[in-house]
Amino acid sequence: MKNILGREVPDFIEGYGKVRHFTGAFANLGERRKAGALARSAAPGQRKLLPSLREAIESSGLKDGMTVSFHHHMRNGDHVVNMVTDTLAEMGFRGLHLAASGIFACHAPLVGHLESGVIEQISVNTFNPGPVAAAISRGKLQKPAILRSHGGRPRAIESGELHVDVAFIAAPSCDEWGNINGTHGKSACGYLSYAYADALYADRVIAVTDSLVPYPNCPVEIGQDLVDSVVEVDSIGDPAGIVSGTTRIATDPVNLLIARRAARLADAAGYVREGMSFQTGAGGTSLAVAAELRGYMLKRGIRGAFGSGGIHAYFVDMLKEGLFRALFDVQCFDLAAIASAAENPRHMAMSASMYGNPHTRGCLVNNLDVMILGAAEIDTDFNVNVITGSDGVILGASGGHSDCAAGAKLTIIVSNLLKGRLCVVKDSVTTVTTPGETVDALVTEWGVALNPRRADLREALRGSGLPMADIRELRRIGEALAGVPEPPSFSERIVGVVEYRDGTVIDVVRQCV
Amino acid sequence: MKNILGREVPDFIEGYGKVRHFTGAFANLGERRKAGALARSAAPGQRKLLPSLREAIESSGLKDGMTVSFHHHMRNGDHVVNMVTDTLAEMGFRGLHLAASGIFACHAPLVGHLESGVIEQISVNTFNPGPVAAAISRGKLQKPAILRSHGGRPRAIESGELHVDVAFIAAPSCDEWGNINGTHGKSACGYLSYAYADALYADRVIAVTDSLVPYPNCPVEIGQDLVDSVVEVDSIGDPAGIVSGTTRIATDPVNLLIARRAARLADAAGYVREGMSFQTGAGGTSLAVAAELRGYMLKRGIRGAFGSGGIHAYFVDMLKEGLFRALFDVQCFDLAAIASAAENPRHMAMSASMYGNPHTRGCLVNNLDVMILGAAEIDTDFNVNVITGSDGVILGASGGHSDCAAGAKLTIIVSNLLKGRLCVVKDSVTTVTTPGETVDALVTEWGVALNPRRADLREALRGSGLPMADIRELRRIGEALAGVPEPPSFSERIVGVVEYRDGTVIDVVRQCV
Repeated sequence: MKNILGREVPDFIEGYGKVRHFTGAFANLGERRKAGALARSAAPGQRKLLPSLREAIESSGLKDGMTVSFHHHMRNGDHVVNMVTDTLAEMGFRGLHLAASGIFACHAPLVGHLESGVIEQISVNTFNPGPVAAAISRGKLQKPAILRSHGGRPRAIESGELHVDVAFIAAPSCDEWGNINGTHGKSACGYLSYAYADALYADRVIAVTDSLVPYPNCPVEIGQDLVDSVVEVDSIGDPAGIVSGTTRIATDPVNLLIARRAARLADAAGYVREGMSFQTGAGGTSLAVAAELRGYMLKRGIRGAFGSGGIHAYFVDMLKEGLFRALFDVQCFDLAAIASAAENPRHMAMSASMYGNPHTRGCLVNNLDVMILGAAEIDTDFNVNVITGSDGVILGASGGHSDCAAGAKLTIIVSNLLKGRLCVVKDSVTTVTTPGETVDALVTEWGVALNPRRADLREALRGSGLPMADIRELRRIGEALAGVPEPPSFSERIVGVVEYRDGTVIDVVRQCV
Repeated sequence: MKNILGREVPDFIEGYGKVRHFTGAFANLGERRKAGALARSAAPGQRKLLPSLREAIESSGLKDGMTVSFHHHMRNGDHVVNMVTDTLAEMGFRGLHLAASGIFACHAPLVGHLESGVIEQISVNTFNPGPVAAAISRGKLQKPAILRSHGGRPRAIESGELHVDVAFIAAPSCDEWGNINGTHGKSACGYLSYAYADALYADRVIAVTDSLVPYPNCPVEIGQDLVDSVVEVDSIGDPAGIVSGTTRIATDPVNLLIARRAARLADAAGYVREGMSFQTGAGGTSLAVAAELRGYMLKRGIRGAFGSGGIHAYFVDMLKEGLFRALFDVQCFDLAAIASAAENPRHMAMSASMYGNPHTRGCLVNNLDVMILGAAEIDTDFNVNVITGSDGVILGASGGHSDCAAGAKLTIIVSNLLKGRLCVVKDSVTTVTTPGETVDALVTEWGVALNPRRADLREALRGSGLPMADIRELRRIGEALAGVPEPPSFSERIVGVVEYRDGTVIDVVRQCV
């Protein structure tokens, strides 16, 4: 059937199951019971430190077809996913479900494990473009990948929809009884927020550490009451791989123009004010918007409430300058953020559930004033795609995109109108990640388009001097410049199921041909 | 039937239900599913700040017969329990179950609510001797009180045995979206550990605060994702009431003798060593033991791993001196501890579940080397009573007594042989709180008795110079001095059910006549 966004999604997907169709960004709230986690007793004196990963896996009772989970705070420097999956392959496991909060280019060896059948399913909420995403698009997985958001993953775990049998936690600092933190140790990566749900709900929790400290580890971020066993390894990863290449403010004049417009839009709409909050990614244009907003705040003596999300050096500096009262962190994007998390009590961790899970009593994204987001494609209904490229190959997953868009009072997509020689505005996006009802504006170098749902914004922006444009007009301009590409060709086979943060299916990704 | 400790406990107790009998301190471990907490959504923009307690209660959907919960970190200075229960009475509620982690003398007005039927059941894990405990002993509650331990309470909540409908959290510092901490604000009381399970599992969570701070409150101890509504009141309590009268080191020479012997015992048994850990209460003799152990540590240059439990100024000083690497805190016993919790990152919070819940993957008490405990009575099988006085009236509840005894490598009961003109050693205690299999030694001014289960200790203590005695001999000495009192008279009616930390019933308390 076609869902309310006009996406063709079957009622049942082989290897996924019965589909609950997306019916609106806020249509599936209310109340429900969570799953019950496993209570498991350790008698006094029962030791947890095991001599090898293999022994920890053996003692976990892992079986073929079960689900193993990972978090991605080591990002592109992570060693744990490969180390564990290689061991699982050596041990002869088959048909596993890999539930990782993120998969990066460094995880290329997973492709072999997909092809050999060690891994038959993947759930993930953020991807670095790379070999694993491409392999999924080429149909190398036996079951469709499930692509979630950062808030949707803990929701799925808490609800029992994503039942984790064995969680592997990359633990930068750990003691032999399983008290873990991510902010200390030679491989410190910052807070371990994405792993909290795994630690709370997995049937077995294995801490993998390269920094075993005397008891008790301090601070305790994930407590010994949740951890079954501890394994020491040489290296859980290379912190240099945490920093992605895009953590510098844009210098390109077009990107700076877009950033200035986005900041002016936020200001004209009334969100640059005492107690304000905002979030940006660590990309160049996003950081340039942060710099613009910082300028307004300094000039007017405004103190903001918080910055949130993946935390980068720019937000760390704003906290130090007193421009934010606090930071809420689900992952550190660079080493300055890691250092800040370790030492500044106002740089606070939040669980991924507190960050973006819609089935909580108020996740943090609901407190966001302004959210700056990117897009691979946006359609004339403001639906955004960050999952597939125009060639139909999987590029990424939602990450916090759909969560933040839904929560923030003002969600701005910043983008060059032309990306990779193609117009970013489409009649219909290849894949819907974030529904248009949660997106308020598109800011490009060719003009600013407002979602018609936001009549209030249109009113507020009168006299702002911003070059307003209809999004259809932007599409026409972009297509006149770049042409209209042939849409990618897909087979019928579904290789990815895109779950909206509430667990409904908003779209599917089909195999590229 | 008689349980394995010889206590007469029926298989079914009216107002409590079917009894699972105590079958040994470590007989009920293993695995089980926890209950599923309620996931409840707040849409963006949904406000939580309500104008009055009455409106918060109305919006919670509370009904007659439901369970309301409280934590006791404001101790004898708490205003919240009385404020809420008075409001519930005014609103006409009947038959409520009051699940408080602790009840103090300041809660005397509850007696009226028991008598009027507003409250028909109480669950509690620590009591200050006082009017409510006495009223329970006199049969004023319609259903028997359930007396748990600090670790048993979160276990009961997590398992669903204690289902909380509405939790009221006294919040010394809170923002309008429900981010709470206990370490800041005019009524700062320290960490809110006992309330964590309530926040995670209650169907509704109401924060009651007298210090509403700008968003976001920092640090976040209990997050906005767990809190349904926030109410501002004039005062949640008087921090002066947190300090009990017994937080000074004993000066009485007999108590000091006992303390010296207990410390010598711990040393001779090999537990005074690098990385050691211990816990004491805040009573005079307990603190004197801490002072003795500190002396050994200073003299030998020993650095301990941690002190734990209710934290007092003495432990705060030892942390500052570097004698502990960290403190693990479930409640602050004095203002020095509160200040330390607010500012010293090595003074860490732990949940009550992490502290003492046996149905976790390793609670902290399992890491304790030495635990110093008191006793109202101890029998010749080393079973300890801290619940009823020799007159049969309820004095207290287990608190952390049975948890720590079960976990610690060496559990020492320190007591004057004669207490209140009676011998502390009995042939059979009035009520069993802590089973003798988890108690290793009794230290008195008349001698040191070892549990015969600890043949290893008997060996280790040879040559220690400690005056060893058989516990039966101590009883004979005490009874020769003090006489054998008439046992109290009880009716058949059960007014209290004593749950061991694993949820089995270890004993019952009958109505005094």
